[in-house]
Amino acid sequence: MIKVRRVERVVALSKMLMDMPGYLFSLGHFSNIFGAAKSTLSEDMVTIKQAIEQFGLGTVETVSGAAGGLRYVPCHCEERMNTLLTTLAARLSEPERIIPGGYLYMSDILFMPDLMMQVGEIFRTRFAHLAPDYIMTVETKGIPLAFTTARAFGLPLVIVRQGSKVTEGPSVSINYVTGAKRIQTMSLPRRALAQGSKVLVIDDFMKAGGTARGMIDLANEVGAKVVGTGVLIATNEPEKKLVEEYLALLMLHDVDQHTKTIDIRPVF
Amino acid sequence: MIKVRRVERVVALSKMLMDMPGYLFSLGHFSNIFGAAKSTLSEDMVTIKQAIEQFGLGTVETVSGAAGGLRYVPCHCEERMNTLLTTLAARLSEPERIIPGGYLYMSDILFMPDLMMQVGEIFRTRFAHLAPDYIMTVETKGIPLAFTTARAFGLPLVIVRQGSKVTEGPSVSINYVTGAKRIQTMSLPRRALAQGSKVLVIDDFMKAGGTARGMIDLANEVGAKVVGTGVLIATNEPEKKLVEEYLALLMLHDVDQHTKTIDIRPVF
Repeated sequence: MIKVRRVERVVALSKMLMDMPGYLFSLGHFSNIFGAAKSTLSEDMVTIKQAIEQFGLGTVETVSGAAGGLRYVPCHCEERMNTLLTTLAARLSEPERIIPGGYLYMSDILFMPDLMMQVGEIFRTRFAHLAPDYIMTVETKGIPLAFTTARAFGLPLVIVRQGSKVTEGPSVSINYVTGAKRIQTMSLPRRALAQGSKVLVIDDFMKAGGTARGMIDLANEVGAKVVGTGVLIATNEPEKKLVEEYLALLMLHDVDQHTKTIDIRPVF
Repeated sequence: MIKVRRVERVVALSKMLMDMPGYLFSLGHFSNIFGAAKSTLSEDMVTIKQAIEQFGLGTVETVSGAAGGLRYVPCHCEERMNTLLTTLAARLSEPERIIPGGYLYMSDILFMPDLMMQVGEIFRTRFAHLAPDYIMTVETKGIPLAFTTARAFGLPLVIVRQGSKVTEGPSVSINYVTGAKRIQTMSLPRRALAQGSKVLVIDDFMKAGGTARGMIDLANEVGAKVVGTGVLIATNEPEKKLVEEYLALLMLHDVDQHTKTIDIRPVF
């Protein structure tokens, strides 16, 4: 046990708290670490809550009762969210991103840790009311984004595999139709999801919604339920997707290979 | 600009700093946000540094000069590292993890955000001296781990794909030999790595080292250089791997399907 000044204790305390978003800590836990009374730590928590709320950096929630405690909840205020999405849209509009076939090169952005941590916090903010038990995605490009969303929620991530892998044990597989109208297989280990659990699907891109639809069917097969779907980018065509409800942060309106222009805009 | 008490300013400051590990902030940046003199913020930084160092949570580095500033460096002290690796080894030894064929089910652990954030910080601590420019991995199971390592370094992540994907633009492909002695293809978009850059390879598992060897060759093909290789788990057989040097955090000695025992130990 290390005795420290109040300001140092508050810094160390907020670091430990914020290192595990969504995790419920008891005051007793911190009391053991810092050798401070619970009432003192309670005051520290009020200070931390005020400090981060003032700058739109998140909040601290108190859960009362015997099994209660405190947890850090990351949050993106509207202003920070809009700034981030506007920046992302601008970067994704760079003409050199156009790949023959009218695709967009996005991997550099999708794999950039700081950006994806922020997008994960946006999904946490938008989907908190659904109280999911798992975050689910399909390999490969959406994994960092789904991981940071899981991180922001403090939930486990489940990754659906293309095809069927021997090293995952007993699995459930389904067929689904890709954006390119091909039939493919995706699979999930039986033990990956608990029966009756609520699943939030997160992916990088949605065109017709076949992949997202596949994940909904796959979750049903193992006795779980998809309660929401979030994607970083959706195309505006086809307007009718294979999933009824989804949230897109950015909308891709057009990629013109001749004029080398990309029209992608935040969805507010 | 919001005027706040010192302790609140220090909390918000440490949150902003620690949200972007490895990123060099100028004092002027924070001076604009908090309306405080640089000398005041400099004292705040000393407080933050002392607070987190005392609890082995990382440090704050000062870079002097006109282009200088301050950055948060996550760090796992020996004690925390050993505790984490011992816990991981215990969880990975649970007999129900054995899959027919003698494989281990590890996805739940590999996709658990809090655990992987910590393992990423361990790799950051162990490989900091190599000063890489990118973290590289190959899809799929190592992605969360490589992502958190990239996050701890404040570096971009590069994901090598199996086969060759049309949506990534001009790519370089090579053949490599898998652990199951099969020839496979892996590929990387040409634009993913800058010429002459230094790459740290991170993966979840190494048996013979064929996949890691493939990534070294692939990096060479695009004019970059692998300066280090880190894996969460390596098997002790074969002792001689296809890569000369690597760091494993855990060593898998044996999986016995009959007695249902798994022998996996931290490498200290």
